[in-house]
Amino acid sequence: MSGDTASLPDLQHVYALSPEAQKLLFTEAHTTYKFTDEPVSDDQLRAIYELLKWAPTGSNVSPLRILFVRSPEGKQRLLPHLTPPNKPQSDSAPVVAVLARDTEYTEHVPMLYPIVPGLREAYDARPELRDDHGIFNATLQAAYFVLAVRSVGLDAGPMKGFNPQGIDEEFFPTGRWKSILVVNLGKAAEDGWRERDARLDFEQVVDFA
Amino acid sequence: MSGDTASLPDLQHVYALSPEAQKLLFTEAHTTYKFTDEPVSDDQLRAIYELLKWAPTGSNVSPLRILFVRSPEGKQRLLPHLTPPNKPQSDSAPVVAVLARDTEYTEHVPMLYPIVPGLREAYDARPELRDDHGIFNATLQAAYFVLAVRSVGLDAGPMKGFNPQGIDEEFFPTGRWKSILVVNLGKAAEDGWRERDARLDFEQVVDFA
Repeated sequence: MSGDTASLPDLQHVYALSPEAQKLLFTEAHTTYKFTDEPVSDDQLRAIYELLKWAPTGSNVSPLRILFVRSPEGKQRLLPHLTPPNKPQSDSAPVVAVLARDTEYTEHVPMLYPIVPGLREAYDARPELRDDHGIFNATLQAAYFVLAVRSVGLDAGPMKGFNPQGIDEEFFPTGRWKSILVVNLGKAAEDGWRERDARLDFEQVVDFA
Repeated sequence: MSGDTASLPDLQHVYALSPEAQKLLFTEAHTTYKFTDEPVSDDQLRAIYELLKWAPTGSNVSPLRILFVRSPEGKQRLLPHLTPPNKPQSDSAPVVAVLARDTEYTEHVPMLYPIVPGLREAYDARPELRDDHGIFNATLQAAYFVLAVRSVGLDAGPMKGFNPQGIDEEFFPTGRWKSILVVNLGKAAEDGWRERDARLDFEQVVDFA
């Protein structure tokens, strides 16, 4: 329960992922609250997507959409919709990603999952199921996004503290995209993150049958 | 839209993650439908959790719980609750993980997120918000779980085709854990996966502000 990894059995022999990659993605990465001025490149933003797109979603529906807010004007439109403690965090980030789900993601299902003909129509006939599936899979992709950000050497600051209606009205006025998570991107400032919080132990989380 | 990566600009210079790790986690991993008999070790199951636990959740609430089904008796209790096409997939897997959310995850919030005193009480006073937050963050952790499985050199077969009420009544009779995703684990058989489906292009998914 302590978050102290030093006392754990050494599991390094089990990992196929290198120690460097474990550190980069999981064990030494920190949610970041303050960023340097170092810019984020177009290639980095593209590389994030080119990696995350391969991680799996149910029936490959891939409903995540991404708005990268990086212009001063874009920032000024975004900040009013964040909770007060989060405003300076996003203000300091060179890029803020608004992760959204496409409510009409089924448009692409015939191309994305041709192995099941008629799947688009089956989803569209059951709007509640379609929405649930879109929300679930966009959320999986939001998690892949955070790890993909770390894969290009950037720090990520995911935040749920925002007004989704406000963001959606400001940036997605047709109503097709709906925001699910805001993620600040950039290089962490020296005092950009807190010491890690504890985690639950394996025995608290896992059961066997 | 073709899923053809060969024509993309070469972004390798952008990645901090090694090419080997990119392949292992993202670009050469496949959702697996059929597994060999090679057993999965206790250390592998522990190593999966010891990695995924560090990936971020909102206010560090960490609501994911994991039931590893690996005994013949456990398999027989599980299979009736899967959709027919999924039964042979789970039957062939040496371990099947039932990923669940803990509906009473706020019990651990004072330990997990001490920086905000009273947060547990604030969630518990708003059950709908508490549930939404639990579902969202357990879903993020389900995605981390899939990548952590690949990190220990195993193949993963995530499946939404199951009856959650049936699984919950069979395995979680107190109602505290609620299933969100089933993931088959093991080593892929030679014919264990299909060729990759296409993905959406960067330009179809991304916008700028």
